[in-house]
Amino acid sequence: MQETMRLAGLIQERIGATLTRHREALTPLGPDALPLLDEALGFLTGGKRFRAQFAVLGYRAVRELDIDGDVTPEYARILDAACALELFHAAALIHDDVIDRSDTRRGRPSVHRLFGALHRNAAWRGSADHFGLAGAILLGDLLQSWSDELMQSACDATEDRAAARRAREHFNRMRSEVAVGQYLDVLEEQQPTFADHEEQLERSTRVLVYKSAKYSVEAPLLIGAALAGASPETEEALADFGLPVGVAFQLRDDQLGVFGDPDITGKPIGDDLIEGKRTVLVTLARENLPATQRRIFDDLLGTDLDPEQVTILQRTIRESGAVERVEDMISRNVDRAIHALAGAPIHPDAAAQLTQLSERAARRDA
Amino acid sequence: MQETMRLAGLIQERIGATLTRHREALTPLGPDALPLLDEALGFLTGGKRFRAQFAVLGYRAVRELDIDGDVTPEYARILDAACALELFHAAALIHDDVIDRSDTRRGRPSVHRLFGALHRNAAWRGSADHFGLAGAILLGDLLQSWSDELMQSACDATEDRAAARRAREHFNRMRSEVAVGQYLDVLEEQQPTFADHEEQLERSTRVLVYKSAKYSVEAPLLIGAALAGASPETEEALADFGLPVGVAFQLRDDQLGVFGDPDITGKPIGDDLIEGKRTVLVTLARENLPATQRRIFDDLLGTDLDPEQVTILQRTIRESGAVERVEDMISRNVDRAIHALAGAPIHPDAAAQLTQLSERAARRDA
Repeated sequence: MQETMRLAGLIQERIGATLTRHREALTPLGPDALPLLDEALGFLTGGKRFRAQFAVLGYRAVRELDIDGDVTPEYARILDAACALELFHAAALIHDDVIDRSDTRRGRPSVHRLFGALHRNAAWRGSADHFGLAGAILLGDLLQSWSDELMQSACDATEDRAAARRAREHFNRMRSEVAVGQYLDVLEEQQPTFADHEEQLERSTRVLVYKSAKYSVEAPLLIGAALAGASPETEEALADFGLPVGVAFQLRDDQLGVFGDPDITGKPIGDDLIEGKRTVLVTLARENLPATQRRIFDDLLGTDLDPEQVTILQRTIRESGAVERVEDMISRNVDRAIHALAGAPIHPDAAAQLTQLSERAARRDA
Repeated sequence: MQETMRLAGLIQERIGATLTRHREALTPLGPDALPLLDEALGFLTGGKRFRAQFAVLGYRAVRELDIDGDVTPEYARILDAACALELFHAAALIHDDVIDRSDTRRGRPSVHRLFGALHRNAAWRGSADHFGLAGAILLGDLLQSWSDELMQSACDATEDRAAARRAREHFNRMRSEVAVGQYLDVLEEQQPTFADHEEQLERSTRVLVYKSAKYSVEAPLLIGAALAGASPETEEALADFGLPVGVAFQLRDDQLGVFGDPDITGKPIGDDLIEGKRTVLVTLARENLPATQRRIFDDLLGTDLDPEQVTILQRTIRESGAVERVEDMISRNVDRAIHALAGAPIHPDAAAQLTQLSERAARRDA
């Protein structure tokens, strides 16, 4: 826990330093650009930092690294890669919130809402909402570039060129897959009806794997490990661990998206139900509903639900037994992950920490 | 001209190969993702390829390269960097069109309109326009990542590490500056009134420099030159050439945005007037208008103009003398650029081609 706090502090510090550097570089563009940069820092404060932690532990699985020690050049290198993942994630979330029409994120207004408010408060001309959209798109683009710069600097500082190249390959694959996974997720919400159960489960699982499991856990681990010069066997073992942890991570997200406490998640109650997300949880819930109830369920999902309707859908999902099924899946995935670590060619203390972090990813309440 | 055709063909081929490679890599995500990839190729067919050409000529200013010859590893390297610029530009245009609410691009519907049409034709659920927005944001993000990958591969193939690092620095600065420049451009359109003439001209010029001049000409030249291992003196000479060419390029764009032939530009007539862009052309036009006429001008600008109103604004701009003033500025900038080339430490045949390309950038009709 001590180590986690130290790491979170270092990540925050480094993100702050990166943004300050960019702010200075952009001084010639004048003070009007400052709100864009201020929003960046605001958005990048806090967050759970799972991706950064998995990247650092991936590195540590291969090479000794004292997380509590001084920031040596070696430590700085993996911290840069970890921050690159956090910046990329921030960019993805900012664009996601536009796409999902989410008004809040981490308990504060989402970025497009903040830019919209800036417009409204200044009594500017034209549509405040559209200005909000523009600001969010551009800030996301900017953060995506800055993420990439940090990844470059991590790779440039890596003497082993093959290791740097492999780290970039994982990073590149991750970026492609998450954008396409997000597209498939949006596509699901547009379908007038659910597919047959088996097909729907396959589709929902595919979105879960690409948009979240690989992106949130497997890829960060592999990027960190590759930077440390991991062997193919070690990478394979980490992937065998990371994918099920990522699946558990997203299944927990599905549960929180329906039952999470808004004060803790920072998102509205029943968020996924209002957005009409066809998660694995929702798909499993529908399977066991009688036809009439299922029709009502389908009609409500993805509409502007009032709190009472949210409660009805929550109860329906709970009574369907889907919550227990998902909890079972989470446990099985965590078990499978931990099993994959046993005998994996990685540092024993990293294995212990990976086990701890996977439990936290699977059992969190926000 | 022969060489330009050859280069344009090679660029198109390489972009096609890049997209095919990504398409194959994304096969595990299933066929639903294909429209995203097909839109990418559709959008990346055609275009003027100024940025790619300036990058290749920047390289050639430093090192001999037979553009008509075989694609050697060295040639492939600069082609990768050139394609990276075209992919980045495509990503920026796709997001720009969302931000500017542009319905057409290069004579065909803009990407968000295409995704919207996909939704409408399939009679999906929810808002077709919002789906269009989501598709455009995600495709832009995807292309931004892929642009970056090509830039990586150009840099990885460069043995001179310092040269590769300098090329990346130019690329990174370009990406930051264009996003912030675009934000400042959007910000201008939100202001309820024009600033005083001098201040407005300064603001409009700042947007022109960062959003376009540096981005379209100076940065591509410097990226190409840096990859070839240019000395600081050569880079300085190319910047002294590139910035005024970029200014002339965008001033031409201002003219085309008001007076361009829609059949040639592929954009609606009077596009900039409808969008309310506060270009240098518009700012100069307002300077000499009598107060009453200026008020009418301001009231019309940035509204949903009918063709007759477009004609009125066009006539007002023409009669203000602003068109001649902008033409003078274009000529002066081209002269200054060509003057900067004389005596610059670059290959003489590259100088001749740079002169030609700068004339085309400044005198084009699309």
